[in-house]
Amino acid sequence: MDRRVFLRNVLLASALPPGGVTWPRLVPRQGRSLRVTGDRLNRHLAELSAFGRTDTGTNRVAYSDADRDGRAYVTGLMREAGLDVRVDAGANIIGRRAGRDAAAPPILFGSHVDSVPDGGNFDGDVGSLSAIEVAQTLAESRTVTRHPLEVAVFSNEEGGLVGSKAMVGELTGAELDVVSRSGKTIRDGIRFLGGDPDRLATARRARGDLAAYVELHIEQGGTLDEAGINIGVVEGIVGIRDYEVTIEGFANHAGTTPMDHRRDALLAASQLVLAVNRIVTSVPGRQVGTVGRIQAFPGAPNVIPGRVVMTVEIRDLSAEKIDMLARQVIAEGERIGTATGTTMSFRLYSENIPALTDARAQRLIAQAADGLGLTHRTLPSGAGHDAQDLARIAPAGMIFVPSVGGISHSPRELSRPADITNGANVLLQSVLAIDAGGLE
Amino acid sequence: MDRRVFLRNVLLASALPPGGVTWPRLVPRQGRSLRVTGDRLNRHLAELSAFGRTDTGTNRVAYSDADRDGRAYVTGLMREAGLDVRVDAGANIIGRRAGRDAAAPPILFGSHVDSVPDGGNFDGDVGSLSAIEVAQTLAESRTVTRHPLEVAVFSNEEGGLVGSKAMVGELTGAELDVVSRSGKTIRDGIRFLGGDPDRLATARRARGDLAAYVELHIEQGGTLDEAGINIGVVEGIVGIRDYEVTIEGFANHAGTTPMDHRRDALLAASQLVLAVNRIVTSVPGRQVGTVGRIQAFPGAPNVIPGRVVMTVEIRDLSAEKIDMLARQVIAEGERIGTATGTTMSFRLYSENIPALTDARAQRLIAQAADGLGLTHRTLPSGAGHDAQDLARIAPAGMIFVPSVGGISHSPRELSRPADITNGANVLLQSVLAIDAGGLE
Repeated sequence: MDRRVFLRNVLLASALPPGGVTWPRLVPRQGRSLRVTGDRLNRHLAELSAFGRTDTGTNRVAYSDADRDGRAYVTGLMREAGLDVRVDAGANIIGRRAGRDAAAPPILFGSHVDSVPDGGNFDGDVGSLSAIEVAQTLAESRTVTRHPLEVAVFSNEEGGLVGSKAMVGELTGAELDVVSRSGKTIRDGIRFLGGDPDRLATARRARGDLAAYVELHIEQGGTLDEAGINIGVVEGIVGIRDYEVTIEGFANHAGTTPMDHRRDALLAASQLVLAVNRIVTSVPGRQVGTVGRIQAFPGAPNVIPGRVVMTVEIRDLSAEKIDMLARQVIAEGERIGTATGTTMSFRLYSENIPALTDARAQRLIAQAADGLGLTHRTLPSGAGHDAQDLARIAPAGMIFVPSVGGISHSPRELSRPADITNGANVLLQSVLAIDAGGLE
Repeated sequence: MDRRVFLRNVLLASALPPGGVTWPRLVPRQGRSLRVTGDRLNRHLAELSAFGRTDTGTNRVAYSDADRDGRAYVTGLMREAGLDVRVDAGANIIGRRAGRDAAAPPILFGSHVDSVPDGGNFDGDVGSLSAIEVAQTLAESRTVTRHPLEVAVFSNEEGGLVGSKAMVGELTGAELDVVSRSGKTIRDGIRFLGGDPDRLATARRARGDLAAYVELHIEQGGTLDEAGINIGVVEGIVGIRDYEVTIEGFANHAGTTPMDHRRDALLAASQLVLAVNRIVTSVPGRQVGTVGRIQAFPGAPNVIPGRVVMTVEIRDLSAEKIDMLARQVIAEGERIGTATGTTMSFRLYSENIPALTDARAQRLIAQAADGLGLTHRTLPSGAGHDAQDLARIAPAGMIFVPSVGGISHSPRELSRPADITNGANVLLQSVLAIDAGGLE
């Protein structure tokens, strides 16, 4: 017997209600024909968007009251979906659904519901509510999987993947003292959400503890939308290297210092901004480089800037390429310094190494999309995600749905309801395929 | 009889004490041989530097407690010099010395004692204390001039020539509501220093009210120091045009937005910073152009800047040249905007028209330097000064002494004691030459 047909029969049998079937009741769709209820999923997304809504966008930053209230709403949905809900020590909300094989490691899937300041209603929310919708759909169809299933809503993703870091055992003591955008330290924020920063070890999952991790997310870029493709199969999450560059010139009076006597730190910084763009675009590929923050000191219209502090960020799937580009930027910075009478110092203050998804998981996701009649394309994730942490301890897969215009981290962020429903169905089918042994 | 010898005899006669001369008492030096006491002047400068001294420089910003206390110290020196001291409605300290001809308009000379944040001890202080030293020297030599003399210590020069604006009747109601660096509004600050913002008209001097205005100041640039020249004869104070430029791009995720899909406001701004430098240095002359302030929004390392606000300042003695350069910068801004998918808007928020000094006053100052055996050079003032306001209602002259290394608005600002003494002697001789009818 075909393994899938066998599995389907098992599922059908297990879904029979205790009192037997009363005909002509419709048998719920099962297995590969199972579908989420898109209207309900999109209604839940709209309801969640009320938490933290302001005139300038969604402000549900981690550890805020809006975050706490949004999580309470999400917890309610999880309970309605029949999940056994708890908050782990890292303040991640975990909703568990038992499987037939109590010894099997759980399949974990989910995302986050915290937002950036002035953010939108899809980043994180789509993956979290779709995971719950998958659980609800399985409950309604009385599907029982072999593996236990766990829906995860990670805490403080936007502030540095805090919840998923805790889950993989990499949340350090020093990081707990960092003040988050909410104004609370991460330690206090975790406590505020019901976690326990003193017992983080209890939240930790080790390699082998999970059968897989799967995350649905909006692309946050414009590739799928522009190409009119339904589903992105994520090949990996790019590495990110962040430098803080300090440029020292000499502050002097803007009226009395002749042009040829200046050591203008901003003039040098501007050359570096252009150099970052030139170097990053000088080789083929999907790497990106950004100067997002710049400050000139003393910062008065009538004083030549004596010091500039700016960031340089480089992202790519290849750690080697990031390194090569960073070396070129630093070398160019030294050249600019010499030419402008300034000194440039580069401080690497943050580095995330690239995280590749599991090749078999990529294949299962693509097959799930095929089975649903959806177009798909393999692409990297330029943004960081909780999946990059989980990829260190479990086979990870990641599914993207289109972002209209590629806009994200903005109130103008939008993913269309039909695309979200497609993504949730791919998530559902991917989880079932993994449960059926697709990664084994 | 040579006019100067005649004058000197008059001065000698007028200086005789009421009770006659007791020989062999030394006759004080008079007229062209009169000299200030440099040691005392430089000691007073050192004493004044104690007010507002901090680890990061002199912080005697207008309307601060340090400013008030420094002015009290200066007022004491003025009284010791025999001046009749009052504070006008604009909070300028005015010390008057009667002349022989009560109907003659006064000769005004002075500067300011407020500092920029983290400033030095010479900008303003040198001119103010030298003016007092001139008065002290005249008192000790029992010199009585024909014109009344007035020593002025203007209020809040660094915050926009506030005191001198009040004196020429150009301090407006709107400006009074501006919050100064002290945290006080200008209105409250004027009151804090003993002025009366409700009666500013009483501080006003009209055209014809003053015989002349003379100001000694440090160069704040490096021209004199580099050339080893003792005295600068200022031909004028440059005009200043200040724009605030807003560059609108589109803020987006720095990881997910491909390089060729960006509308990066900071990339456009950096091109404009370089263009300002290129355009200003593209024609011969002493014009300067500066971008001193820049802010990128939202200003996060992982977000492409969607908006940048920066300043562009252009200075020159020629209003036509400023206009020509500004037009080129704006045109280049439009070209950059088109090329980068951003829009640039230029808002002219401040404009000071160039102020030329009186040609006869320039000649008198040069002759005074010659008479003292000092080298001199004509040069523009790149910085704004109270003299530019006074130049609108009276013949104005301005004397520069060297700034070591051209450094100013910095704790490293330095003018050498000998240079300061030279400047004070040139001021003394210039005032006497004006009194003797040099501008008539």
